[in-house]
Amino acid sequence: MAERIVIVGGDAAGMSAASKAVRISKNISVVVLERTGTASYAACGLPYYVEGLVPDARMLIARSPERFAEDGIDLRRFNEVVEIDLDHRNVKVVDKEAGKEYKEPFDQLLLSTGAVATKPPVKGVDAEGSVVLRNFDDGLLLRAILADSEALHKKPLRVVIVGGGYVGMELAEAVKALGHEVAVVEMLPRVFSTVDPEMSELVAAELLDKGVEVFTEEALVAVEDTPTGRVSGVTTTSRSLPADLVIFSSGVRPATELADAAGIPRDETGAIATDDYMRTPVDGVWSAGDCTASTHLITGKRAWIPLGTTANKQGRIAGENMVGGRVRFGGVVGTAVAKVFDLEVARTGLGEAEASNEGFEVATSLITAGNKAHYYPGASPLKVKLLADRKTGKLIGGQIIGRSGAAKRIDVVATALHAGMTVEQFNALDLSYAPPFAPVWDPLLIAAQQLEKAL
Amino acid sequence: MAERIVIVGGDAAGMSAASKAVRISKNISVVVLERTGTASYAACGLPYYVEGLVPDARMLIARSPERFAEDGIDLRRFNEVVEIDLDHRNVKVVDKEAGKEYKEPFDQLLLSTGAVATKPPVKGVDAEGSVVLRNFDDGLLLRAILADSEALHKKPLRVVIVGGGYVGMELAEAVKALGHEVAVVEMLPRVFSTVDPEMSELVAAELLDKGVEVFTEEALVAVEDTPTGRVSGVTTTSRSLPADLVIFSSGVRPATELADAAGIPRDETGAIATDDYMRTPVDGVWSAGDCTASTHLITGKRAWIPLGTTANKQGRIAGENMVGGRVRFGGVVGTAVAKVFDLEVARTGLGEAEASNEGFEVATSLITAGNKAHYYPGASPLKVKLLADRKTGKLIGGQIIGRSGAAKRIDVVATALHAGMTVEQFNALDLSYAPPFAPVWDPLLIAAQQLEKAL
Repeated sequence: MAERIVIVGGDAAGMSAASKAVRISKNISVVVLERTGTASYAACGLPYYVEGLVPDARMLIARSPERFAEDGIDLRRFNEVVEIDLDHRNVKVVDKEAGKEYKEPFDQLLLSTGAVATKPPVKGVDAEGSVVLRNFDDGLLLRAILADSEALHKKPLRVVIVGGGYVGMELAEAVKALGHEVAVVEMLPRVFSTVDPEMSELVAAELLDKGVEVFTEEALVAVEDTPTGRVSGVTTTSRSLPADLVIFSSGVRPATELADAAGIPRDETGAIATDDYMRTPVDGVWSAGDCTASTHLITGKRAWIPLGTTANKQGRIAGENMVGGRVRFGGVVGTAVAKVFDLEVARTGLGEAEASNEGFEVATSLITAGNKAHYYPGASPLKVKLLADRKTGKLIGGQIIGRSGAAKRIDVVATALHAGMTVEQFNALDLSYAPPFAPVWDPLLIAAQQLEKAL
Repeated sequence: MAERIVIVGGDAAGMSAASKAVRISKNISVVVLERTGTASYAACGLPYYVEGLVPDARMLIARSPERFAEDGIDLRRFNEVVEIDLDHRNVKVVDKEAGKEYKEPFDQLLLSTGAVATKPPVKGVDAEGSVVLRNFDDGLLLRAILADSEALHKKPLRVVIVGGGYVGMELAEAVKALGHEVAVVEMLPRVFSTVDPEMSELVAAELLDKGVEVFTEEALVAVEDTPTGRVSGVTTTSRSLPADLVIFSSGVRPATELADAAGIPRDETGAIATDDYMRTPVDGVWSAGDCTASTHLITGKRAWIPLGTTANKQGRIAGENMVGGRVRFGGVVGTAVAKVFDLEVARTGLGEAEASNEGFEVATSLITAGNKAHYYPGASPLKVKLLADRKTGKLIGGQIIGRSGAAKRIDVVATALHAGMTVEQFNALDLSYAPPFAPVWDPLLIAAQQLEKAL
């Protein structure tokens, strides 16, 4: 009999796994159980759909259920797994459209349940107009509120974004582009704290420049609502802010409820425990994507960094290994980029505080240099920070920020981190040069030269 | 007595060496002898000055003679070295402004004489209006002919560019932007042959699209001139073309005359022989920049690839080692990029034919993928070719071409080549992703996945 593979969750990791498995093996059946009505969509594109840069949300859907069916993947939308029975090797599923419950047996089970956006447990947090942006439907709702149903609202709406990280910043851009007012409330002393303070100060300046109010070091105390239960404002530890809409981008956590209930263990990051082959400690049970952690190649420890790129890679690996393969996930170095209005912000490896906490003897360099030859039209500055470990001379992190040329330049640092390069080796890199694309010494090399002196 | 350092040639390598030497050591005297009136200028910027994108040629000069003097560097322009006397450890110099000759003694001598543009030895090649673009004065002349002295000419001028490489393409753009007619004559079967045919065909299409006539597989037979000695056309092996201006970008060679006359040997590339410390075989004599070769990290052989980035790096190393340092030049991987009208063309490592000739068992992949998420506005395709060696599984080269995002993406491949990465390792790279900057699978990773299958 064909090996029965059941996949819980049909986004990046789940669908990558399904596609890989059916490509490799013919003697399997693959069932994907997706609790929402949308599978295989680009979650990272949602802010751009909200903004209107992506005119139709369906453009975010990579493949239709029909296309998956053609490949032999039985993708069942609106089918929610409510229980995993490890003893009997099946999952209990609620078909929400048909209104019925059934059991689906498996030989191999993949948990690709993703992550869930969290709201702080404050008063009024579930008022109407207090939302998160996590899944496809959240995106449709947010777009509807901010753009499509303008007639229903006064404009500009007063929007409070709770949380100044990647998604918060992308949403601030979207909301502002739609002509509304935006205030960002951030509990930490600064926005965008995944980069070091010398870098995030440029993000803060950009927000100010673009008319976004930013309140840092303020925790949310309550969401205020009207007698009919609609959001009317927020109260922070320092002030009251009026609001027609509150968007929480303040936290996500791995969706582990199903695993927890079945006794499938978590690791020290709180995500579902796996090894680099995406195996959980339970035989025949795998996990991949945002519900799972990765090995961080700089610290050697487990790290939970939920990103679509990692989910896709882990999914493919799980898909291959579930049908008898033996491929290893190579781990992450913590690369991430975002566009914040007209700024590109990029980071990889460890930040300075993080590196110190991990016991590295940190040396840093911080430089500003042009993204093109200084005489070439349109040149603009890039601020580059590089970090190394004095003990080994190895590069351990990098951050780049600027109007153009920051985002993909970080990949050079990421590649060097994968290779375990020393700063001296990095300095010798034969990087590309032509006046329209870089100065003769690329900003990365200028930063590396400074870093070598600092070691 | 202070160690006397004499540097022949005051461009990228020479001035980098001088600056490095005086930064490190105080007990030296540094004399730089530059035969032209311009030192320390960005030769790669000349096409953009000709085009008018750089409004003032002085913007290309990185540092003035006065600034070098402040640093303790005795930069003597219009001072041409005509002979090296190794026995008496001095150089014979003609001061062209003062009209006098003198001898300058040295303890350490650096030859940074650069490269010279060559014209094929055909009839009429030295007619008036038959020019090269190599040094600063060439740039001034070309700008004068093409833009500043319009009144003297009919417009559009008919310009023939001989040689379809980097500089030829950059000049074609410049000449066209100034409203003239351009024809490119290339001896080889295709333009831009430093990338493989699948890539250069896009360059050819871009030239066609932009109204540049291209004649490949045609060698120049003669430059035709008027009775007064002015260019009137060219004759190739296949046709006659009228021309008001002929620009040769068909060849460069290392400037080794001085070294040759002094018995300082050349290596198998024809450039002045050095080791990775930039030492020639002659004690106390060093060489750096376009007159020198480098170790190619993929072939392990010497390679002459004259580029400003390499010249700067070699210059710094020579400067440090001449004052007692012991730093090694890490070699090159053959990275080069160019803008050809609206295309970015990038390459690193070995091309396919080159790799086969070197004895590699070449596997390749060729893909086209978006430079951004497909749904993000302004996404455009990148064509990526990656090459690996079947015997080792290692990456040995890469080429990228596209309207945006090609040039600096090649640096990821260059970094991987420096690290000696296998395709499997490359595939695991944690590269940056956000919809405005890349698809969730970066084009490089898509190409690497295909390449892994081809191995």
